[in-house]
Formats: sequence, structure tokens, C-alpha cells
Amino acid sequence: MRIVLKIGGSLIQDEKGDIRIERLAEYAKVVLKLRKEKKEVACIIVGGGKTARKYIEAARKLGAAEGLCDEIGIRAAQLNAQIMIGALDKEAYPTIPETLQEVAGAAATGKIVLAGGLQPGQSTNAVAALVAERIKADILINATDVDGVYTKDPKKDPSAEKLDKVTINEIQEIINEKGFFAGKYELFDPVALKILERSKISTWIINGEDPKSILKIVAGEKLGTRIVY
Amino acid sequence: MRIVLKIGGSLIQDEKGDIRIERLAEYAKVVLKLRKEKKEVACIIVGGGKTARKYIEAARKLGAAEGLCDEIGIRAAQLNAQIMIGALDKEAYPTIPETLQEVAGAAATGKIVLAGGLQPGQSTNAVAALVAERIKADILINATDVDGVYTKDPKKDPSAEKLDKVTINEIQEIINEKGFFAGKYELFDPVALKILERSKISTWIINGEDPKSILKIVAGEKLGTRIVY
Amino acid sequence: MRIVLKIGGSLIQDEKGDIRIERLAEYAKVVLKLRKEKKEVACIIVGGGKTARKYIEAARKLGAAEGLCDEIGIRAAQLNAQIMIGALDKEAYPTIPETLQEVAGAAATGKIVLAGGLQPGQSTNAVAALVAERIKADILINATDVDGVYTKDPKKDPSAEKLDKVTINEIQEIINEKGFFAGKYELFDPVALKILERSKISTWIINGEDPKSILKIVAGEKLGTRIVY
Amino acid sequence: MRIVLKIGGSLIQDEKGDIRIERLAEYAKVVLKLRKEKKEVACIIVGGGKTARKYIEAARKLGAAEGLCDEIGIRAAQLNAQIMIGALDKEAYPTIPETLQEVAGAAATGKIVLAGGLQPGQSTNAVAALVAERIKADILINATDVDGVYTKDPKKDPSAEKLDKVTINEIQEIINEKGFFAGKYELFDPVALKILERSKISTWIINGEDPKSILKIVAGEKLGTRIVY
Amino acid sequence: MRIVLKIGGSLIQDEKGDIRIERLAEYAKVVLKLRKEKKEVACIIVGGGKTARKYIEAARKLGAAEGLCDEIGIRAAQLNAQIMIGALDKEAYPTIPETLQEVAGAAATGKIVLAGGLQPGQSTNAVAALVAERIKADILINATDVDGVYTKDPKKDPSAEKLDKVTINEIQEIINEKGFFAGKYELFDPVALKILERSKISTWIINGEDPKSILKIVAGEKLGTRIVY
Amino acid sequence: MRIVLKIGGSLIQDEKGDIRIERLAEYAKVVLKLRKEKKEVACIIVGGGKTARKYIEAARKLGAAEGLCDEIGIRAAQLNAQIMIGALDKEAYPTIPETLQEVAGAAATGKIVLAGGLQPGQSTNAVAALVAERIKADILINATDVDGVYTKDPKKDPSAEKLDKVTINEIQEIINEKGFFAGKYELFDPVALKILERSKISTWIINGEDPKSILKIVAGEKLGTRIVY
Repeated sequence: MRIVLKIGGSLIQDEKGDIRIERLAEYAKVVLKLRKEKKEVACIIVGGGKTARKYIEAARKLGAAEGLCDEIGIRAAQLNAQIMIGALDKEAYPTIPETLQEVAGAAATGKIVLAGGLQPGQSTNAVAALVAERIKADILINATDVDGVYTKDPKKDPSAEKLDKVTINEIQEIINEKGFFAGKYELFDPVALKILERSKISTWIINGEDPKSILKIVAGEKLGTRIVY
Repeated sequence: MRIVLKIGGSLIQDEKGDIRIERLAEYAKVVLKLRKEKKEVACIIVGGGKTARKYIEAARKLGAAEGLCDEIGIRAAQLNAQIMIGALDKEAYPTIPETLQEVAGAAATGKIVLAGGLQPGQSTNAVAALVAERIKADILINATDVDGVYTKDPKKDPSAEKLDKVTINEIQEIINEKGFFAGKYELFDPVALKILERSKISTWIINGEDPKSILKIVAGEKLGTRIVY
Repeated sequence: MRIVLKIGGSLIQDEKGDIRIERLAEYAKVVLKLRKEKKEVACIIVGGGKTARKYIEAARKLGAAEGLCDEIGIRAAQLNAQIMIGALDKEAYPTIPETLQEVAGAAATGKIVLAGGLQPGQSTNAVAALVAERIKADILINATDVDGVYTKDPKKDPSAEKLDKVTINEIQEIINEKGFFAGKYELFDPVALKILERSKISTWIINGEDPKSILKIVAGEKLGTRIVY
Repeated sequence: MRIVLKIGGSLIQDEKGDIRIERLAEYAKVVLKLRKEKKEVACIIVGGGKTARKYIEAARKLGAAEGLCDEIGIRAAQLNAQIMIGALDKEAYPTIPETLQEVAGAAATGKIVLAGGLQPGQSTNAVAALVAERIKADILINATDVDGVYTKDPKKDPSAEKLDKVTINEIQEIINEKGFFAGKYELFDPVALKILERSKISTWIINGEDPKSILKIVAGEKLGTRIVY
Repeated sequence: MRIVLKIGGSLIQDEKGDIRIERLAEYAKVVLKLRKEKKEVACIIVGGGKTARKYIEAARKLGAAEGLCDEIGIRAAQLNAQIMIGALDKEAYPTIPETLQEVAGAAATGKIVLAGGLQPGQSTNAVAALVAERIKADILINATDVDGVYTKDPKKDPSAEKLDKVTINEIQEIINEKGFFAGKYELFDPVALKILERSKISTWIINGEDPKSILKIVAGEKLGTRIVY
Repeated sequence: MRIVLKIGGSLIQDEKGDIRIERLAEYAKVVLKLRKEKKEVACIIVGGGKTARKYIEAARKLGAAEGLCDEIGIRAAQLNAQIMIGALDKEAYPTIPETLQEVAGAAATGKIVLAGGLQPGQSTNAVAALVAERIKADILINATDVDGVYTKDPKKDPSAEKLDKVTINEIQEIINEKGFFAGKYELFDPVALKILERSKISTWIINGEDPKSILKIVAGEKLGTRIVY
């Protein structure tokens, strides 16, 4: 079983931008445990989090083109990915690849590859989908700060229901109704949706605040929302 | 005035995949003429055309992952871009950059940069938008095989009207009504739309069968459809 | 046993440039079978075929320097190599190396490396010899569209004999008598001959229309022409 | 006159890690002004500041080797450098070079090159010295958060004197007496001292809180401390 | 046990610059023997020796900046490293990495990585320390042309004693007393000392004229001088 | 007028391998003089000379594959090229490109590009021809240690005549008669001949012991042997 894991930036940085070190250490433990059981986490994509937002905001004020802002966000995400290399030690590929081809080349060594963003115009969620597709992963686990996909905004509407399963079409319908997804746009960026759809990648969107949830998913438990085709 | 030019693959290859050499030569003439007048065409993005479609089809039948198919399309587009280098001779940057950063670096030499695709998950139309944004181009000219944006499919509905101006929102509405755009999806891929929108790039969609149309656009004539913000 | 396999472009593209998908699929099957038997095909070099010729012709008409034409031929050969990656799936190195050093680095991962051309001034036959030498392959199999090396042009002279064995000197004598090799020049380009000679690489030239011939060669059958030293 | 400018990380980030946007904007203004007067700031090296410290601390807690920690600091410094690209717009080289050779190559285009760290084992002060030497800069201006070099720690000893001029030998003597330089070690890391000494680079250490000080130095005013040979 | 081996340039080139082929062959034998016993020599750094000195001297006379001279020395060391690849054959990584990241990436394939210098401002002794730290080696063996660290210059002072163990602080004290270390500066360049100190790398300085000494060190014999913390 | 200059390794190293510094300095003077007169020497290719031969011999004795030996020769030639960078100072491109594409990219900056070898299987004479073709040079000057092309071996046969002009066909005939060219093979390696022939590059073979000969050629004097088509 070949797994691609996406860890949202907000899971590893708090609102002030401080690193949630214990959580990262726990993620490392979970990943190394899975590896021992031959359930290989081939690649971990980490989001840019607060650092990305802070630097992009500064760059924009200084007159940076949006494309340059994206590149700054990419480097911030790479920084978040890079601190995990130490925690995974000799099991980790030692550097951060910067193109999809480099990710694939690094994965060919059999080490766990850590990556941040790759190219302007894409969120790290798109990167995770692209990587999962490129290295033919069996499943993609998207660990984020929500419990999964809801029918409506649970904070505003008590009738909102968490979906256990959802299709890409249903996600698109929910997006079109807006409101709820205003701030959650990235999880469903159009590139990510297109890639998931065309390659029918088994994807779970879960609350990643407890890294052990990854073990549960792999063990077959029902958590968060599964994207089905 | 800094121009980015996108040339659709279908404009430079016929349905059998043969290269339309004269048209390419004419494009080169137009670009060199503009350069002399200090209306610099900084970068030309060329689509993958028939070659891309043929190779992708073969790869897919052989079991290639969709991401690999995209990479094959990228290389085919690079091949189409590469043949233009000879026509532009010493004014052209001598090699084809393969990442957005390399495009920007090559453009810094002041030569005309030729590029094909860059990364899976994006059409060459998205590449053109990303490049225009990254190098702060003044305008983006998208030369394709249609006359511009229509309200409906002109082949099916005689009441279809060509729009002189269109907003990104309007394009999205037209896309949502589908039908017409079935085969024209690429021109408006979501990454391209997002980039154009956020950076408000002056964009013209024109019929590129006659390369001299480029000169007309630059001279201020009204042709095709202009995307406005 | 470490094998380098060269597949001529004409074997995988027909005269119109269409891809011979079934033959490619069969090549993949043969290579994967050998791999299971620990007769490792370490690298497969694919020729540029019809695509290369078509693009080079166009580039030349547009005024491209010959060196640029060679680079275009290299990219076309890479395109032909790239579609085989999908067929070999996880056994293949995921990207196409672009220098001899990169080929060697990729081969160090133990995956099957696919390559096209590398540098102007060399045919893909020279590339195959260079790679075989660089990675210390035990044998080089050159699959082409002729049955082997003949003493004369079999199409013009019924007294022409196919040679079972031939030395580099004998090949050079046959070349010097010209005529016959007019159109077959590439198979014996001077770089390829020099490399084979100096490193005394066990080389077979065989008709590759039936990919199973590869299995026969490896099993010790006599096929085509063997270059001896 | 060819200038290399080092901007200390603490000048552009406050203690919480927030970016001092106005100061960066002013630095950009100063650099562009000098450029117009043909006093070319060829390269700007930016330190890693608070971001570097925060990420390194986290990585270390997660078990990262010190070399990896250095690489994390390098990327953080590159992030600080990258936000200045937008402020300098088309005058800036568009990407951040990652080796000394790339810095030299980028500088050959005549654009202003922004760089962060380059390699483990060196502070960004060493990088600034290496770059100044490599591109044969006329002067190196090191903008930091102190007024220059003191004979003793001014915070602890009221008899401390700021030096207008200092030799490398004198700096080394002051370092050997320790105490004062405990927290200021980086400014005088051994690689930086060795490079300055061997190439006798005209170097000014100035308080960079007011970016206009750069203009004063170039105009010949006496500010901070000059390293002499 | 993961070993990094540094071989001084003077051990493999005589004063005329001729290569000591037999010694190199013996080094290869020792390294391959250790590999079989699962005492992996992960990386071998080779010094620039006489070739480096000759080329640097010429470059300096021609007006080269010191940084360029360093780069010339780096290439000379790479040349010395490259000739060892042939001797280690298929166990060696096939190319010479040129940055610390590339060293780490190459080491991830499990092959023996050969390297020369990496970047101006550092001796190859610093490179050896950086590599040992980066790939978390268990020990670093520095094979040079002296027997170890002495308290004074043994050639000038008969009371000089070879030290079996030494701390970084003691080395620095010996350096400060100068004289003895005039010509041996490189072994203790400040970057090397800083890296060894901060990562507490088990380091042996031994006379490498007899490559079998490496085996003795690994077997636990006391030879040369050990750096302790 | 765009010139490519090839300087034979034996011109810049004596038989012991020592660098002929004065001659190199004179070459630099000549090149800078031509540059001032707008007769741009776009690229200088330098041979590997004695250093290449010495290292290759050692590598071969250590069991290196011939392809690796070529790579060692390439690096030695790069070393010879690199020392010229200092002599040309800011007019030189600061680093040594390692592929033909990199040569072309570096030349696009307008600096003088220094190069050594590029790829196994080719002499630096082939590199010079490839570069001249790739950057569309007007003439190629091959400075070597003979006066030009002779009909026979002048050392053995007093009836040998130096040719003022020669065609590629005539060179091939002289080569076929052997004897004379035994030790001079490289000047006319098959790749070089093929490239010169196909691109009809104006080429002079001259005795480069006096660098001022370059000025004479450019001024239209008749020296050495000219290759005509």
C-alpha cells in the first residue's frame, strides 16, 4: 500500500506562526510505524501555513506580482516540509524536490519524500493530488483542520451534515453554493479536483489534529470524508 | 510594451500532424517586426497540438498514469516551441525553459523566450497566463483557431454572438452552460482563469490563422474578444 | 547479465508517424519478463523515428542551424522513450535523463532507465553505445528494421550475404564501399563504431519487428549479426 | 562602482518575526536610486532573521542534524531575500540563486541579484564576502543592528569605543577577548574574515536601521566602522 | 557503521603531480572489503593535491579573484575523486556531486559517493566534516600525510609529543601558538573545527600512507589522533 | 563577426603538465583586443592537454570504463578553460558550461564563454565545431601545435606540402592513407568533420604558439590551412 499524505499548514503552525513541534514529532512516529508495517508513506506534502501567509502579505505590499507571491508561498511550504526531514531521519529523502519530476525521481530511491509547493497557480492540495497520481499511490490522505466535507457551513447552519462519502460532482455543487467554502477554497482547488477526478484517487479528508487518525484510516476505520468515484 | 503571445497547437499543425511551416515563418516575421518597433514580444508559448494528442493517446493505451500523459503533452508542446527558435534566430533565447523560474531567468537576458508546457495539471493556456503574470507583461495575446468568445456555440445556434469584451465571470457563466465549450475547454482552464482574474492581465483571444492579426491588436484595432476586469 | 537495448524509431512509428502501440506493449512485456529472470535490461534507448524527421525538416526550412535540428531530433526521441515509461510502470525510472551522467545516476537506482538522444552530433545508436560503455553493460542489443549486416545491398544485389559475425573493421570496409549503406548510415555512425571498438561491447544487430527476438538473443540463439572483436 | 549589500535579518524582521515592510520598501528605493546614478548594487544578501531561528529551533528539537538546521536557515534567508524581488521589480533578477556559481551567472545578466544563504557551515555574512570577492565588487556594505565595531561591549562597559577603522587582526583580537561578541559572533564568522582578508575587500559595517545610510557611505561620508588592510 | 573517509591530496599525488595509482587501488580494496563486512564507507572526499596548487598558482598569476581560485581547486579535487570511481566500479555512485544536497541525494541510493570540494571558502577537510554531519556518519577518518596531532612541530622540537586524544579546544590552543601548524592549516580550517565541535563527530586523524590503517581504526586499534568531546 | 576559438591543450601546458602562463595571458590580450574592435570571440574551447592524459592513464589503470575516462578528460579540459576566466575578468562568463545548451544559454548574455569538453565520445575539437554551429559563428579558429594540414607527414617525408586550403573530402583521404595522422587523429575526429561539413563553417587550422596569429587571421592574412567547401 502506497500512501501520499498531505498535512495542512495550520496543523503544524499556530496562529502566531509558532511550530507545533509535538504534533510534528507524532506525525513522524506514525509515518515510521506505517513504514515498518510495509504500508509505505511514499511522500508527505506540507502546506505553507502562517509563514506563507505572512510573507505573501509582505511581498504583496511591496508590489510583488501574484506569481512571485505564489513562489514565496511555495518556499514557505518547503520550509515547513524541511523541518520534518530531521524527525524522519535516515528514512527521509534528504532534500526537498522542487518539481514534480524531481519528486518522482526522489521517490524512486524508496525513501520518504518531503515536499512543499511546486509551482505558481496551484495550492499544496493540488500538489498532493499531482504527486499521488504521478507515483500511482493507492490512497491520498488529506489531513486538515476540519472534520471532513459538510453539506453546509456547520458554524452557521445547525442542519449542516458531515458527509461520509462525496463525489467530485457533489463537491463542485457545494462549492457553487459558496458561503461555506469561502475560507476553505484551497482544499478543493480546481487543479486538485481535476486530478482526483481523472485518476480516481482514493482520497480521505480528515481532521489531522490527532496524527493517529492516519493509522485508523489505514486500518480501515471510517473517519472524515471519503471522495468516491 | 511587453507582450506574451500564446500560439495554439492547432494553428501550427494540421490534423495529420504536419507542421504549417509558412504560418510559423510568418509568425516569426511579425514578432521580429514588433521587436524592431520596441514592442517586445518577451515570450511565446506554443501548444502541443496534434503531436501531443497522438502521443498521449498512445501512452494512455500503454497504461500511463494521467500525470505522465501530461508530461508527454508538455514535451510535445516544447517540440512545437523549439522549431520556432530557428525562425527567430539570434533574437531567440537558444533553449526551451522547463520551469516558470527558468522562463523568468531566460527572459532576464532580453531575448525572446520560447516555451511549451511546464507542469502536469495545466494547459499551455495556463502557462501563458502564468508567464504573463510572472514577467509583468502588459498584454497577453492568445492566438487560437476560433474568432473569440461566443455567447453560445455558433455551429449549433445561429443566435450565437461573438463578444467584443467579456469578464472572467461571464466566461465562467458561459462555461457552466456547457455545450459550446465541450471541445474548447482548454482555452479557459481554471488555472488560466484564476491567474488572469487575480492579476487583471489585458488579454485578447483572437483567430491566429493570419499572424498579422497580432500587429493589428498591437496597433489598437478591435479584433476577437478582449477579457476585461 | 546487464543489457542495454536500443529500439529503432522506425520500429515504433509507422511511415505516417503513428505509434505502433501493440509492438511497444510487447517490448514492455519482454523487458519485464527478463527483469523477473534477473536478466536486467538496465537502459532502453529509443530512436526519434518519423516524428524526429518531420520536425527537423520543418525546423530546417525555418532556418534552424543544424545543431538546433539535432536538438529537435533529441527531444523527439525522448518523446518516443517517454511513452514506454507508462508501459513499464513502477519498474521504470520515472523521468527521461538528458545527459550521460544523468543516465548513469538514474541507473544507480536500479530502475529501468528510458532515454532518447543526448547531444547534437550523435545518433541514438551512438547514445546506446555510450550508455552500454558507461554502465558497463554485458551486452548491447540493437533492434532495428533490417535483419543484420549484409555484405552488399540485398535489395540491389542477390549475391548479398547476411553476416553472422562481423568486426568493426569489416563494417568500415563495407561502409567505404558505400552504396548499400546510403540510407542505413546511422546504425554505424562513427561515434558508435569508435565506442564499440574501444570497449569491445558484445553487440547484436537484429530485426526488432518481433520483440521476442530479444528473448532469443538472451537465451543464446543466433540471430541477426553479432559484432565481434 | 560595484556594490554588494548585506542586510541583517534583524533589520527586516522584528522579534515576533513580523516583516518590517516600510524599511524594506525604503531599502528598495535607495538601491534603485543608486542604480540610476550608475552606482550599481550588484547583489543583496539578506539574513535569515527570526524566521531562521524559529525553524532551526523546531528542527533541532525534532532531531535534525546540525547540517540540516543550516539548510533550514538558508531557506529562511532565501525567503527574506525573495520578498525584496517584488520591491525592485524589473530591475531584480527574478529568482534566488542557490550556489555561488549561480549568483555569478545571474549577476552576468546585469540585474540586481537577491540571495540568502548558500551552504551549511557559513553565515550569510560569509556569503556576502564570498559574493563580493567572486564578482569583484568594489565595496561591501554590511548593514546590521549595531553602529559598528566597538573595543568592548558598550552595554556592559562605558569605556567601550566605537572604532572608525579596524583591521582583520584587530577584529580577531577583540573576538579572542570574547564576552562582547558572544551574541555577535556571526558578523565575524571565520569564513567571512578569511575572505575579506585575502581579497582585501573594502567593507563597511553600519547601522542599517536607516537605509539612507547606504547613500551616505557611497557619497563618502564616514559612518560605522570600515575594515582596512 | 557509517564511515566518511577523507583522503588528503598529497596521499594520491606526488610532488610532481603524478598519481599514486597503487595506493589508490589499495584504498579501493580496503573500502570494498569494509563494504562487504557491512561497515559502509558512505562517502569519500578527496583533496585537490598538487594539481589544485599548480592550477591555482597559474590562475592567480593570470589575475583570477581568490574565489575563482577556490573554484579551480574544487574542480581539481573533483578530478582526484573521479579517478577513484573506476576503481570502485559498480559500488561507486557514478558521478561527482557538486553541492552538499547532491552528496546527500547520491548517498540515498546506497552507493559509495566520491566527492571533491564543494564551495569557495572551505577546504576539503571542511567538506568531509560537513558531509559526515549531513549524512549522520558514525565516524570520520581523515587520512593525511602526518601521524596525527602533535603538541609542537616535531621537525623543529624533539620534545614534541603525538597526542592520542585531543579536544577541539586543545587544537585551537595549539593553532594559536602557531609555528607548527603553519603549513598544516587546512586540516584544522575553522569551518571543519566548528562542524566537528557542534556535532561531536568521532574523528580520527591518521597517517594514510598505508590504506590498511583504515581497517585498523575500524577494528578498534589505536592509531593517529582521535578528536574527543 | 562572431568567432569561436579552439585552443589546443598542448599550447597551454608543457610536457610536464606545467601551465604556460604567459601564453595564456597573451591569448587573453588578443581576445580582449578583438572584443574592443567588435570582432567578438563568443566562445573559447580549451583542450585537456597533459592533465587530461595523465588522469586518464591513471583512471584506466584503476579499471575505469572508457566512458568514465572521457569524463575525466572533460573535467581536465574544463580546468584548463577555467584558468582563462581570471585573465578575461569581467568580460568572461563566470562559470564553465557543461552542456551544449548551457553554452548557448551563457553566450546569450553576451559574455565570452569558456568551455572544455562536454560529453564522452567527442574530442574538444568536436565541441568547438558543435559550438560554432550552435551559436552560428562566422568563423572557427583552431589553434594547435602544427602549422596546418600537410599532404604527408612532414617529419618523415620531405615532399610533404602544407595545404593552404583543403576540403573535408581531402582531409578524409589524407586520414585514410594514415601514417601521418596517427598522433593527430583528434583534430579531425569524425564528429568534428561531420559538423564542419554539414554546416560549412569557415575554419582555420593554425599554429597557435603565437596568439597574435589570431589577429592576423581576422585581418584577412593567409595562415595555416583553411577548410573550404
